[in-house]
Amino acid sequence: MGASETVEVTGHLMDSGILSRILDDIRDYGGDYQIDTFDVGHEAHDPSSARITVRADDDASLQRLLMRLQTRGVNQLDPGEAVTAPAERTGVLPDGFYSTTNLETRVRIDGDWYEVENPEMDCGLVLLEAADGGRRVRTVPMSDVEPGMQVVVGASGIQVSVPSPGSVADAFAPAPGEAYERPQAVLVRQVADGMRQARDDGKRLLWVAGPGVVHAGAVPAFVALVRAGFVDTLFAGNALATHDIEFSLYGTSLGLDLGLAQGVEHGHEHHVRALNTIRKSGSIARAVEDGVVASGIMHALVTEQKRFVLVGSVRDDGPLPDVYTDVLEGQRAMRAEVADVGYCLMMATQLHSVATGNILPATVPLVCVDINPSTVTKIADRGSNQGRGIVTDVGLFLEQLALELVPDYRGA
Amino acid sequence: MGASETVEVTGHLMDSGILSRILDDIRDYGGDYQIDTFDVGHEAHDPSSARITVRADDDASLQRLLMRLQTRGVNQLDPGEAVTAPAERTGVLPDGFYSTTNLETRVRIDGDWYEVENPEMDCGLVLLEAADGGRRVRTVPMSDVEPGMQVVVGASGIQVSVPSPGSVADAFAPAPGEAYERPQAVLVRQVADGMRQARDDGKRLLWVAGPGVVHAGAVPAFVALVRAGFVDTLFAGNALATHDIEFSLYGTSLGLDLGLAQGVEHGHEHHVRALNTIRKSGSIARAVEDGVVASGIMHALVTEQKRFVLVGSVRDDGPLPDVYTDVLEGQRAMRAEVADVGYCLMMATQLHSVATGNILPATVPLVCVDINPSTVTKIADRGSNQGRGIVTDVGLFLEQLALELVPDYRGA
Amino acid sequence: MGASETVEVTGHLMDSGILSRILDDIRDYGGDYQIDTFDVGHEAHDPSSARITVRADDDASLQRLLMRLQTRGVNQLDPGEAVTAPAERTGVLPDGFYSTTNLETRVRIDGDWYEVENPEMDCGLVLLEAADGGRRVRTVPMSDVEPGMQVVVGASGIQVSVPSPGSVADAFAPAPGEAYERPQAVLVRQVADGMRQARDDGKRLLWVAGPGVVHAGAVPAFVALVRAGFVDTLFAGNALATHDIEFSLYGTSLGLDLGLAQGVEHGHEHHVRALNTIRKSGSIARAVEDGVVASGIMHALVTEQKRFVLVGSVRDDGPLPDVYTDVLEGQRAMRAEVADVGYCLMMATQLHSVATGNILPATVPLVCVDINPSTVTKIADRGSNQGRGIVTDVGLFLEQLALELVPDYRGA
Amino acid sequence: MGASETVEVTGHLMDSGILSRILDDIRDYGGDYQIDTFDVGHEAHDPSSARITVRADDDASLQRLLMRLQTRGVNQLDPGEAVTAPAERTGVLPDGFYSTTNLETRVRIDGDWYEVENPEMDCGLVLLEAADGGRRVRTVPMSDVEPGMQVVVGASGIQVSVPSPGSVADAFAPAPGEAYERPQAVLVRQVADGMRQARDDGKRLLWVAGPGVVHAGAVPAFVALVRAGFVDTLFAGNALATHDIEFSLYGTSLGLDLGLAQGVEHGHEHHVRALNTIRKSGSIARAVEDGVVASGIMHALVTEQKRFVLVGSVRDDGPLPDVYTDVLEGQRAMRAEVADVGYCLMMATQLHSVATGNILPATVPLVCVDINPSTVTKIADRGSNQGRGIVTDVGLFLEQLALELVPDYRGA
Repeated sequence: MGASETVEVTGHLMDSGILSRILDDIRDYGGDYQIDTFDVGHEAHDPSSARITVRADDDASLQRLLMRLQTRGVNQLDPGEAVTAPAERTGVLPDGFYSTTNLETRVRIDGDWYEVENPEMDCGLVLLEAADGGRRVRTVPMSDVEPGMQVVVGASGIQVSVPSPGSVADAFAPAPGEAYERPQAVLVRQVADGMRQARDDGKRLLWVAGPGVVHAGAVPAFVALVRAGFVDTLFAGNALATHDIEFSLYGTSLGLDLGLAQGVEHGHEHHVRALNTIRKSGSIARAVEDGVVASGIMHALVTEQKRFVLVGSVRDDGPLPDVYTDVLEGQRAMRAEVADVGYCLMMATQLHSVATGNILPATVPLVCVDINPSTVTKIADRGSNQGRGIVTDVGLFLEQLALELVPDYRGA
Repeated sequence: MGASETVEVTGHLMDSGILSRILDDIRDYGGDYQIDTFDVGHEAHDPSSARITVRADDDASLQRLLMRLQTRGVNQLDPGEAVTAPAERTGVLPDGFYSTTNLETRVRIDGDWYEVENPEMDCGLVLLEAADGGRRVRTVPMSDVEPGMQVVVGASGIQVSVPSPGSVADAFAPAPGEAYERPQAVLVRQVADGMRQARDDGKRLLWVAGPGVVHAGAVPAFVALVRAGFVDTLFAGNALATHDIEFSLYGTSLGLDLGLAQGVEHGHEHHVRALNTIRKSGSIARAVEDGVVASGIMHALVTEQKRFVLVGSVRDDGPLPDVYTDVLEGQRAMRAEVADVGYCLMMATQLHSVATGNILPATVPLVCVDINPSTVTKIADRGSNQGRGIVTDVGLFLEQLALELVPDYRGA
Repeated sequence: MGASETVEVTGHLMDSGILSRILDDIRDYGGDYQIDTFDVGHEAHDPSSARITVRADDDASLQRLLMRLQTRGVNQLDPGEAVTAPAERTGVLPDGFYSTTNLETRVRIDGDWYEVENPEMDCGLVLLEAADGGRRVRTVPMSDVEPGMQVVVGASGIQVSVPSPGSVADAFAPAPGEAYERPQAVLVRQVADGMRQARDDGKRLLWVAGPGVVHAGAVPAFVALVRAGFVDTLFAGNALATHDIEFSLYGTSLGLDLGLAQGVEHGHEHHVRALNTIRKSGSIARAVEDGVVASGIMHALVTEQKRFVLVGSVRDDGPLPDVYTDVLEGQRAMRAEVADVGYCLMMATQLHSVATGNILPATVPLVCVDINPSTVTKIADRGSNQGRGIVTDVGLFLEQLALELVPDYRGA
Repeated sequence: MGASETVEVTGHLMDSGILSRILDDIRDYGGDYQIDTFDVGHEAHDPSSARITVRADDDASLQRLLMRLQTRGVNQLDPGEAVTAPAERTGVLPDGFYSTTNLETRVRIDGDWYEVENPEMDCGLVLLEAADGGRRVRTVPMSDVEPGMQVVVGASGIQVSVPSPGSVADAFAPAPGEAYERPQAVLVRQVADGMRQARDDGKRLLWVAGPGVVHAGAVPAFVALVRAGFVDTLFAGNALATHDIEFSLYGTSLGLDLGLAQGVEHGHEHHVRALNTIRKSGSIARAVEDGVVASGIMHALVTEQKRFVLVGSVRDDGPLPDVYTDVLEGQRAMRAEVADVGYCLMMATQLHSVATGNILPATVPLVCVDINPSTVTKIADRGSNQGRGIVTDVGLFLEQLALELVPDYRGA
């Protein structure tokens, strides 16, 4: 093995399972390791730290392995200096580019450390130098790369911090000493507390929702939460908005088809008629202003002046005029809304939840609620530790959440 | 085709899909048919009726086909007289025995019609003659057959009535004219209404529940429902009672393992310790009397003098002393509790729900609640039309149901 | 009820359940009905026909109901003449537009019937008149509407044919008289037969596939099917192509994460590196030509000169340069490939399968294979009767299919 | 905290996640800990070892915690001597009994170590002393406890060995250097290799199977495996055997109802007729001898003189005469077959798989195959590390397995 580097990692290495994942990664990348020192905390809550020498066949492999390990918060003992290379083509990162995580990341250039401004997964890092010599480092998605951008290559000069598990997940710890465990009710209450806390901290509340919210009968609860100020921004697709508006226009009852509800839109012509009606109005906001749409989630968002980003997909009819049909433009619109988000709820949508998880910094607590365990697993297990999954019915969950958060909510 | 018979069927044949299932059955059994007359109701709510000549290769095949069709409410035009044959061995029905449904069934003997006393699926029909010549007909499970019993063979002399869809399922129709559809909340309310109605009619309320009720945090809601008189009888297995009691004794928190909770009992020694403790007491009731168990579902049932039947399975530890370890004895104990049941709720258990569905007459409305769609489908699609499935979280469902039914319930 | 119309429908009304769905629709739309005549076939395979008078509150409601009923093959007794209205705005259909199905549809204008050229769901019907007076009628998706287009409004002058169940689904009937039932093996063989038949008929074979095909280890089987001429066109997203290429470039083993495999792409930097590599090449075809990609599904498609359409989604990284990032352009590219398709297989993707189902005529047999029952249900239950769902493992399914179709395939 | 004890554990503590589970356990039981020494292996494959002082509120709590930790292979530094107490009642273990795991366990008495003969979960340990003073220690299930039995109490004098992960799971590691990953095909081959190996080692092959095996069309593959000597013992319920025999007798086609197949037995009278037929014969073996049953899985087991244990459940009809209706007797019959088992396959049954997992020593490799991920998770995550889960279709899996293991198998 021709190349080696000494790395270190500190934290609750053992009881969070992180160390075992680190060692798995080394093996998966064909590397080898030797644990040089391991300092275990003696008391239950002490952090531990390890210094590990990792080896790979050659330097390119080693750099890829080191980048991989940084997703676990493993940094080089001697961080060195970041190396950059210019992008040569639009939309293409230079070879050996550093592939980002959504963790807090610092980059060392000429001896100074720069905080990455908008941590996001699977991007490059671009070094921006202002005319006055001021430097900034930010993530750039592959599709936004411009020729000449100075992009970090290799893992040198980069440090990544993994949030301590407690900072996010503690919100979900059961209160000690309770005679009865009350998982679902407790979880709703913990989500309510997290949302109140984020709002009190001046943060924004981001929701990501699929059409199942409408089918499950949660429109009244959702509207109440919007009106009470617990929804600042909604990310969704064409389906949620269309079903909500179809509901408002026609009062039809797709929702009673248990389990299958989200698949029945096609062939049900109310759906396309609702789409055509809003296309005729020009936008959802205009349809609300004109009195065409007088109720529902989209109506509440418009009248309460909340923000929403709707991004389309290949399966869409219509779509609504507000929908981004270009998915890269949709991603850019979503990125523009991520700043200052302090809590994120994901409800009954896998596509938009994964998309949001990609661009949200690891410091934002997120909760994914879905009746399908596999969706919850995908969101909650995304390498970062901010996710929390709740496998339950979104209809009853939102009903309970509204009862918890909205003082005068009387139930659907 | 050597044998034929003319049958007739009346009801909402087309809009309930019954006719298509009848024709499917004939084909599946290798038979053929000719529709002699078809009288369709002209208005939307008129019943229709059909007279069909069915043919099969030989008389034995024809008899089997006719028995099959009776599960759909298809009766012979000329019912004829029932034929009986004596059982020759313990636990064995005579060849060609009539295999029952759980529908209302009448049997004609010497020109008189006798109502089958306890309709149940997959049994034989036994003719009982009292010393004074009085006759009764009742179902007998295969395992309870005694030599000499007079058992009905063939389909002659038997009439079966399919309940009209409305009589059971109408309870679930959404109220007309509602501005918003509110499926989950509406469904909870409909279940609550059905339970109140059954209780007002002097009927008993039967629950069938699995350990998921405990894991989902629904113990407080369930206890409140017991105390408020909405649980007359509970059918369950060893696991529900053990987890409930473990909870009461140790307050341990299996329930927080979302999704996987019901599988973790083994290796978790509190579980076996709870079992041993109750075995030492001799029975659950004695453990309650002695103050060993002071809270929980089983405690509430004992102190409110409600009935429960616990039937074991091969995967059980212990089991609790109250558990029937012989499944046939368990079935008999369940049968003994079925009379006068007017509503049945099935929560988070497939094994005991299927077992209960087998012995419950088709006239009893039943609701199956489970987060797993396949369990709900199995219960709701059992050939009889009394079933209603709700795919949702049992924890939040019971919380909402208790809020609906128990005036002073303040939530878990 | 102020407006009424007499309609008729012919076919296997009862044993296919169609009649009960028709009557459900009438009720769902707030209408009422009277069955005027019902002519039931007497023998088992005779079609039946019904004449029904439907009523609605007003003419607009009636027209909507009639359009709905046409999705079931219910046509007006007196079809009348089609009425058209000009579109006034780009992307907006005129009020009262006829909303299409993907069934065979004819439109009557000036006494002549015109076959709709490309039946597709949820579109409008546009009447094209050539300079020489020649007329054509074709579907137009809402987003492609141009001002001045003559669009059919209302249900008059339109006839829809529902394919007889046998024409598509009979391919799946088990052979009579088989001693053993062999569902999965039989189903694979039936799919193989259907594909051979379509190819022999000069039709094209369309595949729709998700990344699960790669994760399940089916790359060798898929490549063998491409090389043997059983894949003419592939519809997919960015993920399938990227995972396939990542596999080819790095040989990494996402696939061993059972169940969770499709969610782990993010954070696994090989994924973004593969994307960047192909973006640098400029296209997948160029990367194949340059020897950058030397194996895998995309490589086989390129070298065998087969067609593929990749349409992106909001969750994509990269994406690959061949991916349509605008979903409407992606839909158009898919539509351009649908002509002459004689068989469609959908594998492990809900998003692209639904999108394809929307644009595929009902006359094309389609088979959806997925380990997730809910995806299969959504595709197979889309109102048209061409769908067939198989709940199984795509890896083993494709392995068996390749063994069946490719003479020298020796297994993965 | 009043009581403490020093424990030690050795193994691949970090990369297997074991250490984090140990620390979780201590917290879950309300204890505290201090890590005294931690000796980490330096090279990648070195084991590591830790010495930990654990504390609890009182000695009883400490003993319970120590017993819990032994399920992880954590033993007391000073093992001390085992303490026994006599059982006082039938079926009741003494207070403070040691609750077993299915790991290799040794008990120290009077300075000597005795190997526990039949490790099994959730039992007590009974000390048997022969007339000649010879001692043995074996597990005793709670229900088999007799008054006077000497039962181990507390955790002193007990040592538990956790198998190294490699010894079982290595069988599943992908071969290095493979160009393509082929999960499903590779997994089938690994299972085949494991079965051949166990057979070559003179071990017996145990199968646990549910009715889904029949519904999925795998009867021919299963029969071929029986005839080729790859099935020594079958554990199943009433349903598998009944469906198999119904198939043989009537050739009916329950299996074509994808996904729902296992729920449809009731109401389908062939099912009860098959049961009655075998009850009349007196046993399955007799029905085979008499030519009543001439094909299928049960026929193959009988004619090849293989063993089977059928244990009933509350949902059973009939049952077949061979079925244990008392679940405790059924468990005893299963225990009697467990000796010398060297490989266990579990197919499409949760109930009997969990039951088998309870009584099988941790040294036996077991593979659970099911299309339902939650069943696989429950079996594979049972605290011991011998389990391996494969989420796939049992029909295609068995087809592939038979092609792999049976030279002349030509496919279903």
